[in-house]
Amino acid sequence: MQEIQSVCVVGAGAIGSLFAGHLGSVVQMKVLTRRKEHAALLNAHGLKVRGKSALHARISAATDAAALGDVDLLIIATKATAVEDSARLIAGHFPSATVMTVQNGLGCEAVVARHGNWPIVSAVTFMSGVRHSDIEVEYELDTATWMGPWAGGKASYADVQQIAALIERSGLKAKAFPDLLPAQWSKLLFNSCVNSIGALTDLPHVQAFARREGLTDLGHLVHDMMAEGRRVAAALGIELYRDPWAMNVEAVSHGQTGDDEYAHVFSMLEDVRAHRPTEVDWLTGAVVREAQRLGIPAPIHETLYRLVKARETSWQRRPATQIAHGSPA
Amino acid sequence: MQEIQSVCVVGAGAIGSLFAGHLGSVVQMKVLTRRKEHAALLNAHGLKVRGKSALHARISAATDAAALGDVDLLIIATKATAVEDSARLIAGHFPSATVMTVQNGLGCEAVVARHGNWPIVSAVTFMSGVRHSDIEVEYELDTATWMGPWAGGKASYADVQQIAALIERSGLKAKAFPDLLPAQWSKLLFNSCVNSIGALTDLPHVQAFARREGLTDLGHLVHDMMAEGRRVAAALGIELYRDPWAMNVEAVSHGQTGDDEYAHVFSMLEDVRAHRPTEVDWLTGAVVREAQRLGIPAPIHETLYRLVKARETSWQRRPATQIAHGSPA
Repeated sequence: MQEIQSVCVVGAGAIGSLFAGHLGSVVQMKVLTRRKEHAALLNAHGLKVRGKSALHARISAATDAAALGDVDLLIIATKATAVEDSARLIAGHFPSATVMTVQNGLGCEAVVARHGNWPIVSAVTFMSGVRHSDIEVEYELDTATWMGPWAGGKASYADVQQIAALIERSGLKAKAFPDLLPAQWSKLLFNSCVNSIGALTDLPHVQAFARREGLTDLGHLVHDMMAEGRRVAAALGIELYRDPWAMNVEAVSHGQTGDDEYAHVFSMLEDVRAHRPTEVDWLTGAVVREAQRLGIPAPIHETLYRLVKARETSWQRRPATQIAHGSPA
Repeated sequence: MQEIQSVCVVGAGAIGSLFAGHLGSVVQMKVLTRRKEHAALLNAHGLKVRGKSALHARISAATDAAALGDVDLLIIATKATAVEDSARLIAGHFPSATVMTVQNGLGCEAVVARHGNWPIVSAVTFMSGVRHSDIEVEYELDTATWMGPWAGGKASYADVQQIAALIERSGLKAKAFPDLLPAQWSKLLFNSCVNSIGALTDLPHVQAFARREGLTDLGHLVHDMMAEGRRVAAALGIELYRDPWAMNVEAVSHGQTGDDEYAHVFSMLEDVRAHRPTEVDWLTGAVVREAQRLGIPAPIHETLYRLVKARETSWQRRPATQIAHGSPA
């Protein structure tokens, strides 16, 4: 790919806003939004980043891809549940772009590839932020975004290195991998387990996720489920970059306060509480489908997958408003 | 046992009130309650049954076992979660009584046996009712109570036949079994699965529980979990009285309206919605403990058991009141 001089972010939630707010300091920055008011505000006021960075980016925003012109790099930063819609919006546009996906889980690259012939880069991000308004985002966890060429596409490792270098220059952290699968699967197995368990138990990532003393301790479930996932990865020939159980233990054994009070609320639990479709098809569901394809038993993943999908259907019977005004939960 | 002339019911919820309201027409009837006001109301006004029966029973009620004197039959009709407390209340009293337990699941008989030397009868009930007040209950589903001598005790089949005959004379349905285990385990495996799945998905017993077409259809989970339970029962040498999967299919394929609108809300889901301790230890947990004792894999039961137990712990973090006033669900 040529030198990156313009970037478009699709979807300016917390992650998309963090990319746009930082990259706006080093390249020409465009944002494709869903809402017209959001685009108008970004065009008028730009995008402010506070927290771990203090930046103010000039942005060209629109709800129509045709209005933005071509770019060198396009980052799809919507949730996995919206990638199909995002890919439809960009289809037929951005002929020079390399497209990078940063969703949780597996399968978003293939969705994008069905809508255009762009080189595709896979990424997983560990940074986090809070979106305070359409034009202001707070940079909280300054952890890296990992990226590598998608195996099904034509992006090269050199392309990925160039993107990682650009992102680092903008003030964010990035790491290029010749093969992202070991890192992507580490995060997949971690999230496939802890997100679905959190969604069903209404628990954030508390220390109980690592406790394995009594018969009913939740750590047994997390551990057994991750062992199941590791067997699927092994059958695919993927050597995990990090052991998901170690990631789980590490995540619950520190924290700003050292206790459970500020434990991380998983995005899937936030979705369940708000009665929004979850990303379970791309997380637990992705592991189930790989296991079935390979003929490997994965009863715990199947169970969690079906429970979360069934929970989603319950919202047709008990809308969020009815619950808020009716009996508790 | 001698001819039954007096009966005491412990716990006058819906099931306890149905027993007391009916048996009061054929024997001297006593009720041991938790609340003093409840006992006072029953002593003053008796207990009315409407719906499938129209009865008005005279009741001697108290919160103290010593105040009630001896009886021939004592029915513990509290939830499984309260049987330990009930057994403590009756310990040292009712020397002539045969004690009958009617809780869901496994293990309540052994709890009672730890507190006294009474002959013990196991029972499972399929009847249902709605408690409209402390002194009025509606008899809804007029299905039978099944009973048999508890294997760990000294009640005889003849005792059980006498109790069943008395219950039938009072207007309820009953069936005596020389060995209740085949019937008790049928109901156990049915409830172990559908109750825990309902509790986690927030779904009543809808038709989806029997659907097995797509990968995520909930019927796969119900079916696989019940197959796991059947393997545990088989290892114990128990030939099930009814196939729990057939019970599941039958339960969701009829109903007054023929659709899901009035689907049965499981008691465990009611407990979860109200943030009350559930009976999961006596249902899914009982199957898990038997499986572990026998060395039989039961990953789906273990998963559901640990999820429900973890869900119960979440209420310490998010009390029902906070949820009712805060964000939806």
